[in-house]
Amino acid sequence: MRASRFFISTLKEAPSDAEIISHKLMMRAGMIKRLGSGIYTYMPMGLRVIRKVENIVREEMNRAGAVELLMPVVQPAELWQETGRWDKMGPELMRVKDRHGRDYAIQPTSEEVITDVVRADIKSYRQLPVNFYHIQTKFRDERRPRFGLMRGREFTMKDAYSFDRDVAGMQQSYKIMYDAYVRIFDRFGLQFRAVAADNGAIGGSGSHEFHVIADIGEDALVYCPQSDFAANMEAAEAVALSASRPAASQALVKTPTPGKAKCEHVAELLKLPLSHTVKSIVLTVEKEDADKEVWLLLLRGDHELNEVKASKVPGLANYRFASEGEIVEWFGTKPGYLGPVDPKKPIKVVADRTVSNMSDFVCGANEEDFHYTGVNWGRDVPEPIVADLRNVVAGDPSPDGKGTLAIQRGIEVGHVFQLGTRYSEDMQATYLDETGKPQLMQMGCYGIGVTRILGAAIEQNFDDKGIIWPTAIAPFEVVVCPMGYDRNEAVKAETDKLYDALLAAGVDVILDDRGERPGVMFADWELIGVPHRIVVGDRGLKEGKLEYQGRRDATATPVALEEMLAFVQMRLNG
Amino acid sequence: MRASRFFISTLKEAPSDAEIISHKLMMRAGMIKRLGSGIYTYMPMGLRVIRKVENIVREEMNRAGAVELLMPVVQPAELWQETGRWDKMGPELMRVKDRHGRDYAIQPTSEEVITDVVRADIKSYRQLPVNFYHIQTKFRDERRPRFGLMRGREFTMKDAYSFDRDVAGMQQSYKIMYDAYVRIFDRFGLQFRAVAADNGAIGGSGSHEFHVIADIGEDALVYCPQSDFAANMEAAEAVALSASRPAASQALVKTPTPGKAKCEHVAELLKLPLSHTVKSIVLTVEKEDADKEVWLLLLRGDHELNEVKASKVPGLANYRFASEGEIVEWFGTKPGYLGPVDPKKPIKVVADRTVSNMSDFVCGANEEDFHYTGVNWGRDVPEPIVADLRNVVAGDPSPDGKGTLAIQRGIEVGHVFQLGTRYSEDMQATYLDETGKPQLMQMGCYGIGVTRILGAAIEQNFDDKGIIWPTAIAPFEVVVCPMGYDRNEAVKAETDKLYDALLAAGVDVILDDRGERPGVMFADWELIGVPHRIVVGDRGLKEGKLEYQGRRDATATPVALEEMLAFVQMRLNG
Repeated sequence: MRASRFFISTLKEAPSDAEIISHKLMMRAGMIKRLGSGIYTYMPMGLRVIRKVENIVREEMNRAGAVELLMPVVQPAELWQETGRWDKMGPELMRVKDRHGRDYAIQPTSEEVITDVVRADIKSYRQLPVNFYHIQTKFRDERRPRFGLMRGREFTMKDAYSFDRDVAGMQQSYKIMYDAYVRIFDRFGLQFRAVAADNGAIGGSGSHEFHVIADIGEDALVYCPQSDFAANMEAAEAVALSASRPAASQALVKTPTPGKAKCEHVAELLKLPLSHTVKSIVLTVEKEDADKEVWLLLLRGDHELNEVKASKVPGLANYRFASEGEIVEWFGTKPGYLGPVDPKKPIKVVADRTVSNMSDFVCGANEEDFHYTGVNWGRDVPEPIVADLRNVVAGDPSPDGKGTLAIQRGIEVGHVFQLGTRYSEDMQATYLDETGKPQLMQMGCYGIGVTRILGAAIEQNFDDKGIIWPTAIAPFEVVVCPMGYDRNEAVKAETDKLYDALLAAGVDVILDDRGERPGVMFADWELIGVPHRIVVGDRGLKEGKLEYQGRRDATATPVALEEMLAFVQMRLNG
Repeated sequence: MRASRFFISTLKEAPSDAEIISHKLMMRAGMIKRLGSGIYTYMPMGLRVIRKVENIVREEMNRAGAVELLMPVVQPAELWQETGRWDKMGPELMRVKDRHGRDYAIQPTSEEVITDVVRADIKSYRQLPVNFYHIQTKFRDERRPRFGLMRGREFTMKDAYSFDRDVAGMQQSYKIMYDAYVRIFDRFGLQFRAVAADNGAIGGSGSHEFHVIADIGEDALVYCPQSDFAANMEAAEAVALSASRPAASQALVKTPTPGKAKCEHVAELLKLPLSHTVKSIVLTVEKEDADKEVWLLLLRGDHELNEVKASKVPGLANYRFASEGEIVEWFGTKPGYLGPVDPKKPIKVVADRTVSNMSDFVCGANEEDFHYTGVNWGRDVPEPIVADLRNVVAGDPSPDGKGTLAIQRGIEVGHVFQLGTRYSEDMQATYLDETGKPQLMQMGCYGIGVTRILGAAIEQNFDDKGIIWPTAIAPFEVVVCPMGYDRNEAVKAETDKLYDALLAAGVDVILDDRGERPGVMFADWELIGVPHRIVVGDRGLKEGKLEYQGRRDATATPVALEEMLAFVQMRLNG
């Protein structure tokens, strides 16, 4: 590609609404252009990256036996009603009426449509398993779109859907996709981590997220450097920090703690480690008969509640946090001094695993400005329900017993799910088994946020000059920058020769023939992030040399004219 | 590709809502699946054809210097309001509100968005010309979607937009696109015709349509086999059928023609050729002061009115057909006996060019059951306004004076327009010229209906067995059909060898390893329309032969094993 035949439009300053580095750099490099809130035009430079991402995804999906099709953007409401998602999904689902007043969704995902295709076309166990995917425009009407392509409203997603005869088949299809995802993210050249995840609203029985590691990431990834344990914060099991409960050694004492409503302050006042205190969180569950249940969740003072884990405690699926009025009614005092000892009205007490193995601990006395010390289970308080309620923290023992946990931040770019019969049951997607009996198909679904990959890749790969694309997804692999292409015949001749040789060798090269000054030219390509640069200059040519500089190299390397092609190919492969 | 790793789903019968052959065959061949009215899933087999069409379009657009980007499907109403199209466009423009109640259009085309991109990024004459294109999902909420992909609501279109400094530049960009379109349709391997067209609602000053020739086509294409004249029916100029008006030779005679309200019947009664009669069409134009003008259009009895041409007569831009009440009020009689001689109230008379050169003609006498014969301009009726009002017919002289016109049917699959400043003016898309003065950009736009190409190609290429794809856009170029792949080791070995050799030679081949009976296998591939088939059978192998059959060949050709690859390559290139 010659730059004069392409479209390059860089900016000195990012627009003020760009908050994070990837958004700023993509705007400055002319990769995207904002059309509306969370809606971007993919400019030529950005589209090249998207196409490279898509092609890697496509190749690996095909290799894994998935078959590409293309499902519509505009989808009839009837199918979404069959699974109940038309009503269940909030305003993220963009709804539209046609000229006859019929309802449609602008697809955020395609479980319903693919299940409709499959229930019509797959009749027999002989036709299973199948796995279909498409790479298509999606729309989610986010409440607060932000961060450019990271949380846009219109975006491109690859979504694949597998259909199997039984759970074992589904698990096998899931494994194949998981492995394909590992290859895909490897090929992108990005540092990533696959973590066990919660299925959440999509339903089903098992899932993994694929995250690109980046400090800006919205998700905390929990992993064990000594083993292969990895999970997101919701799915990372927190073990009890002591293996068993020591015997009680202190008496229960009510202690004045005036104005000390937080564990930190109580510990300070009492000159105790924070890990001797227990904090109280009060939840309310509305019952059908208009009655309420009030639950007290107990966590060690230095731990944090994990709300998803709380919702999995039997009876707490639909909890909400209690109001101050409810707290006063059930505990007889206001928040800050609560505890499990003698509440005013009956409550259910759930202790985090770590708390359940504590003795002689400190908690609120259900009386303003007082706490108890020396609290012990069984003696002062009935034995609680025990559950995993807390977020793990770095240094916790790994739940597989093989080391200690570490935490890093990640950007979710892929998600694989075992859906089971969540959709096939509602939509009656069945096949006939060997005995001629209809059976529900077992589904899996597998997404990759194609456009989000761009943002995530940049968050992981940039410096103060701009983007540093991994070669596999760079808009161009190599840029050739001639000094005086239009003025110097020798420069032009050698540049053209090199450019033709690179093209002939299948290198994705751009020749900057715009006639810009070297400073502008170099700044543009560093901002855009092309990973390999070759400079053709008069001075070097006199010594038979060109200059090579990798985007991460501190300085340029002189390379003999006749060796440059081989040199670049070596760098491209390494 | 191995068929066992692909998805093939053919049907014996087409669904009852499929009216035309291309729709029926695409459904039967499993290329598309209906999701809703005018909305289709592109199944794997159909998507392969779409991709091949897209790739040819992309290659030729790139070669012509256009640069690919991707504009969003969901577009803010504000831009559509700037050009007035938000209000002007009817319900075909699918409108949607987001969670905040803001208006968006689901794009049917992208003039507004590209003009917005360009006015922000292009500042100087030095940056012009530019030409951007994208290949993207479009939606038009057609009143009556039909014919499968031929008139769907959701479809894929390539749309390109050029921006130039001046009209000469725009015409040059237009010419480049026109030539690219010729290459594109040549490469598809389809019989097509480019015809001059009317700009219609999109505005601007010149355009051509590209049609795939097919009997089912909705459009009549006019061309001259002796010259390069070609236009659609609206744009094809009709010349006067006699060069000058003969002198009057008959007296004006009122003749009883009881019950003969049509020219055909009058001519029969009077034993005159139909070409001696003149028919009357009455139009009304509402004036601003609530007055009306009534116009009489006159055409030779055997000619037909072209409504677009009528609307171009000065004063007739907003005409409607007159009501019977209006006709009686202005002519004193009911339709069937009207004419230009002595109407009851003043009218404006427009004669088609051919009529203006007639003498001694027959027309209604403005009295029920009477016609005049021997009517002559100047003597019996004032000289009329003269205009081209009629559809041309086969055999008419070509307007370029170089032969006679022929007519054939076509399916419109491409359209190129010179838009001028239609959009740049409303949206103030300007650049600074050499003197630093802002100037409006001159635009062109260029569309290809990617998914419609599939329907059009089939309408031109099918037989009673199914589709016959041109090789360039076939889902697969070659199918290898082994007889007993799973049972016969020699067959399997030779099949695998041939398949590998074809793959290695870059042939897009599918191996039918499904284990179907030969009859089923052959019927499937004939229906799907793969243009080249190789059969590997035990009997042939014993003589060292395979069988080749082109999709249009009446019989198979035995080809020696070792010659098959070269033979197929020859057929693929010829």
